Amino acid sequence: METDDSDNYQDGNQKAEDSIEKAFEDTEVPPWTKQITIRSMVTGFLLSIVFNFIVCKLNLTTGIIPSLNVAAGLLGFALLKVYTALLQKFGLLKQPFTRQENTVVQTCVVASSGIAFSSGMGSYLLGMSPLVAAQADAGNTLINIKKLAIPWMTGYLFLVSFVGLFSIIALRKMMIIDRKLTYPSGTATAHLINSFHTRKGAKVAARQVSFLFMFGGGSFLWSFFQWFFNAEDDCGFANFPTFGLKAYKQRFYFDFSMTYIGCGMITNYMVNISMLVGAVISWGIMWPLIEKQKGNWYGAHLSASSLHGIQGYRVFISIGMILGDGVYHVLYHAGYMAFVLIRSLRSNKPEEKKLSSEMELMESGGVPSSTETELMSANYDEKRRTDFFHKDEFPTWFSPTGYICCAAASTICLPFLFHQLKWYHVAIGYIIAPVLAFCNAYGCGLTDWSLASNYGKVAILIVSALVGEKEGGVIAGLASGGVTMSIVSTASDLMQDFKTGFLTLSSPRSMFLSQVLGTAMGCVMSPLIFWFFYKAYPVGDPKGPYPAPFGQVYRGIALLGVEGIGSLPKHCFALALSFFALAIAINVATELLKRYETKYKIYRFVPNAMAMAIPFYLGSYFVIDMCVGSLILFVWKIMNKQQAEELGPAVASGLICGESMWGIPAAILSLVNVRAPICMKFLSDEDNAKVDSFLSS
Amino acid sequence: METDDSDNYQDGNQKAEDSIEKAFEDTEVPPWTKQITIRSMVTGFLLSIVFNFIVCKLNLTTGIIPSLNVAAGLLGFALLKVYTALLQKFGLLKQPFTRQENTVVQTCVVASSGIAFSSGMGSYLLGMSPLVAAQADAGNTLINIKKLAIPWMTGYLFLVSFVGLFSIIALRKMMIIDRKLTYPSGTATAHLINSFHTRKGAKVAARQVSFLFMFGGGSFLWSFFQWFFNAEDDCGFANFPTFGLKAYKQRFYFDFSMTYIGCGMITNYMVNISMLVGAVISWGIMWPLIEKQKGNWYGAHLSASSLHGIQGYRVFISIGMILGDGVYHVLYHAGYMAFVLIRSLRSNKPEEKKLSSEMELMESGGVPSSTETELMSANYDEKRRTDFFHKDEFPTWFSPTGYICCAAASTICLPFLFHQLKWYHVAIGYIIAPVLAFCNAYGCGLTDWSLASNYGKVAILIVSALVGEKEGGVIAGLASGGVTMSIVSTASDLMQDFKTGFLTLSSPRSMFLSQVLGTAMGCVMSPLIFWFFYKAYPVGDPKGPYPAPFGQVYRGIALLGVEGIGSLPKHCFALALSFFALAIAINVATELLKRYETKYKIYRFVPNAMAMAIPFYLGSYFVIDMCVGSLILFVWKIMNKQQAEELGPAVASGLICGESMWGIPAAILSLVNVRAPICMKFLSDEDNAKVDSFLSS
Repeated sequence: METDDSDNYQDGNQKAEDSIEKAFEDTEVPPWTKQITIRSMVTGFLLSIVFNFIVCKLNLTTGIIPSLNVAAGLLGFALLKVYTALLQKFGLLKQPFTRQENTVVQTCVVASSGIAFSSGMGSYLLGMSPLVAAQADAGNTLINIKKLAIPWMTGYLFLVSFVGLFSIIALRKMMIIDRKLTYPSGTATAHLINSFHTRKGAKVAARQVSFLFMFGGGSFLWSFFQWFFNAEDDCGFANFPTFGLKAYKQRFYFDFSMTYIGCGMITNYMVNISMLVGAVISWGIMWPLIEKQKGNWYGAHLSASSLHGIQGYRVFISIGMILGDGVYHVLYHAGYMAFVLIRSLRSNKPEEKKLSSEMELMESGGVPSSTETELMSANYDEKRRTDFFHKDEFPTWFSPTGYICCAAASTICLPFLFHQLKWYHVAIGYIIAPVLAFCNAYGCGLTDWSLASNYGKVAILIVSALVGEKEGGVIAGLASGGVTMSIVSTASDLMQDFKTGFLTLSSPRSMFLSQVLGTAMGCVMSPLIFWFFYKAYPVGDPKGPYPAPFGQVYRGIALLGVEGIGSLPKHCFALALSFFALAIAINVATELLKRYETKYKIYRFVPNAMAMAIPFYLGSYFVIDMCVGSLILFVWKIMNKQQAEELGPAVASGLICGESMWGIPAAILSLVNVRAPICMKFLSDEDNAKVDSFLSS
Repeated sequence: METDDSDNYQDGNQKAEDSIEKAFEDTEVPPWTKQITIRSMVTGFLLSIVFNFIVCKLNLTTGIIPSLNVAAGLLGFALLKVYTALLQKFGLLKQPFTRQENTVVQTCVVASSGIAFSSGMGSYLLGMSPLVAAQADAGNTLINIKKLAIPWMTGYLFLVSFVGLFSIIALRKMMIIDRKLTYPSGTATAHLINSFHTRKGAKVAARQVSFLFMFGGGSFLWSFFQWFFNAEDDCGFANFPTFGLKAYKQRFYFDFSMTYIGCGMITNYMVNISMLVGAVISWGIMWPLIEKQKGNWYGAHLSASSLHGIQGYRVFISIGMILGDGVYHVLYHAGYMAFVLIRSLRSNKPEEKKLSSEMELMESGGVPSSTETELMSANYDEKRRTDFFHKDEFPTWFSPTGYICCAAASTICLPFLFHQLKWYHVAIGYIIAPVLAFCNAYGCGLTDWSLASNYGKVAILIVSALVGEKEGGVIAGLASGGVTMSIVSTASDLMQDFKTGFLTLSSPRSMFLSQVLGTAMGCVMSPLIFWFFYKAYPVGDPKGPYPAPFGQVYRGIALLGVEGIGSLPKHCFALALSFFALAIAINVATELLKRYETKYKIYRFVPNAMAMAIPFYLGSYFVIDMCVGSLILFVWKIMNKQQAEELGPAVASGLICGESMWGIPAAILSLVNVRAPICMKFLSDEDNAKVDSFLSS
């Protein structure tokens, strides 16, 4: 799930036009220094704050980050449009608002909120914290814990986040122009931005923006309303036993969260259903069965959050399945990449077309995107875009020099931050990294599926095992996992942005600079915003409002690395291994069905292993929200398909943004110890009778 | 409010067509014996059960009965249409489904649910019951209480409900043909039925029916869902402190009732706003101020439901305002009637046209109905309708014989049922009644505003004062109030139906017979259904789910009659008198504004005195629902006016019907002592802390 797998929804905006660039023929393309303007950076900065908040909140609640590109695109366009329109009205506008400038804003925002995700505030860095560590007896030693603090986290982010940007710039022409990789997300963003700057598109955008704000406002007010009934953690709408108290105890309830309804609306139907299946299997069947073995499989005295008790089964079976899925994808990816390279070396023809469309079809759940045909038919566009892409070159020395400098700085400084990590660990990492970065950027170009977090998990497992528990293998593993993840993820993000830039005639230089600035913003904001939540709530407490599940999961992986399987409760390893195998089996089955069963396309109904694993830890409350979101979209599409496609993503973004924005005042209220006045409590009939007689006495 | 003041909403269906009857020229009109068929009576019977349930539930909750004509019309049409369509499919249909048959069904259903209202199960009969009597010390003597029981209630209804039907049949031609009274509700119903039987109308009706069922189903499921959280009376959504606990204590909260949202959608905006104003004045300002005088104005030891305490202020101030409004209308009505009669006698010209349209404009809140112009322009229609109206005459002896027989039976039997009532009370009543019945039917024809309950209240006051407390004046007053109300209300209902029949070419005979059968159904069903609720819940308990406010109000009026003002708590009479005067002042002011301030039409924004008085007793929870309904309709109309007008009433009816239908299983569950499993409780932060420590100990 930590990948953007919900990008098909923009199809509604990308109605195939014969030539997009013909429509923009008369519009002058400004030089790159005028694409990246002060106003665009200010807009980018403001939106970065907003999106960092949203991503941080999502990271700390479920770790599920839906694609926020549409929201960022709409808001960026709206802000700059309003600003320039105002200036124009007073005759003060010097430079018109171009789509290149729009692309720069988008790139900046996406880069900075990308950091909010890859900075590991909800995963590997949080996994180092004492609170998460305390939940497992193993590895709960001083050397395997690092107290979180803003300065070192910011330093760490600056050290690791820029390396990736330099790793594969040199290959951009190969990927974008020669190989013509599709980068579905980047392409969709480009189409969105191009459409904004046509007359018809601007009208649609205005409607979308108004819906975004309307539903955003509604969602904000609803969260505000909910707050009043939430005097304690177990009160309020977030604990509504919608399907009864028994189901609530197994975490089956609808928690009235607009955020996850919105997420559900922009996530694949099948992903939502997979999560539901996972929730039923785990919380409906497995956990109750395992809990019956309490005192037998695991000690009856253990606290509910101990990794040696039931929580251990939840975390490690979940890890098993996530790792299984990750390993499958990494291997499949590597094999596929090798196959493509060998084949293209042999024949030297651009065959990716066929392959890429095949891959895309596979990964996008059977919905072929229309980008392909558009690219083919528009030779004029192709030529013009290629010209502009070639216009602003980077010097040859730029990429290697940048990479070496950044990597050297990182190799020297990181061991000071984490004395558990040796310089040679880091150095070896930076030698292997470019290969991984290339693989991921290439794969992402074909499939839109970024495997950054999978590479990160594998790195954690390897490094923590190498270093060992006594030397602080947990911290070393988590830190190096972060290094890997950052490089791999920023490299593919950059390449996505180059694709967007290519399609909007934006200069690679302005793209790169905007990405760098966005990354810097992210590195500063991300720890600060995290800190805001961290101070206000017990982040990482599985029973609190911000359980941040991936903190536990990532630390669990590191623990597996340092301790091996010995520390797990009884039968836990066998179960985790089964689910590891199951994840691989599901993937293989899907692959085989895709290739050999083309009549009914059954593969579309095979659940997604990664998605299934997420509710193993969290339970299904957010899954039910997301399925409600799916249902709403489904019914809406039946009633008015065009409207649903046009406004659905805007409504979803509004729901997500609105509730997330309420997170700011809510956190402030919590910081200054203002409690809600009412507790909406759900008591069984029996308890209620007791309480009534108690209160009246 | 006990009058249908929400009839404007059908305008959407009555698009002016030049001649309606031209469209039906080729359709044969069956003889009256074929208009009232077995299938129509079976349909009428089934729907009567449904609508008796709905009206009974509304009677016992707030006493506000919105117009259910649209729902009855739609459902009657749908049932018979489906039935005949099925028969036709199998070639078994012998007689086509005509609009006359449709009118017969409608008449039957409206008559029987009219009894559900005028039978006083939520007002004067309930006011005789021990539970209501116990809430006041005064009049709580054996002779002033009558235990409710099905047999005598049914007998009573049969005795009083048929007299009215005979009272003014003889005048039907004068009212319908000569005076051309508009009877807005009857006219609207006729238009609805006529439209159903055109091709286009049938399509619209199909959409409306599907919306009715969709929202009905939704409303039912929502009530079902709510039930689970309602283990005790103070639990669940019905006690949701939407605006905080303090506001909840003053009964300001939104209770998530779909019924009253639906009611709000088909009630005038101004009526809803008037109720809100009334709620703010009473529960927001007056009651808190009076409660500060506890121990000073009234005894501190009194229970919250004693009429000598705060409850007394609520009831009697409410009565003051309701009586003020009633007296004003009765006087205005009488004066107006006299004026019209004298004028028409003098000039002998049909001038009612102008006057009636004027009156209508006044009473309908400024929305002129289109019926007038239609009637004028369609001379063909007029002739054809008049012909059919004259076709089936009643013999001259029919009306007086019927009236004398019924009245005699009533005069003889009623004193046996209520020994507090003497035969001469009843006899005098029946001598005066036809005049009142005529006045009301005439007024209703002009304004659609039936004053039946006002006449009833005045009768209670007079008779109970005449009989006195020691002789059982309370029971005598309530019983004779019922007699008056029944005559007056059935007479005007019948005339409405004649109007509907006139406009649909239905025979007056079939109309009359259908009305008689419907009335009989109502007399049997109404006590049975009431009994169902009465056994399942503490009906009339102001803190229970069925407070049935008018039970207390009607008994309060009788108490005023027998005891005079001496029994009221301190300053209560002065306050009640002020509000009596205020009600009259508001009416006079409205009237003057209507006549002399025609520019801004400020009179449209003057609140309605009757509507203001209702929340005095109940608080504003249902008012907030109704305002939400208004708001929904308002926004819907802004977004899509045509759709809102076409589907709004169907949606509202669905909401009302669905939740009311849930009343049946809910009452059964309550009867067999099945309690909901969960209590959704709202505790203050403080209480919650106590409860948490109590529960965990």
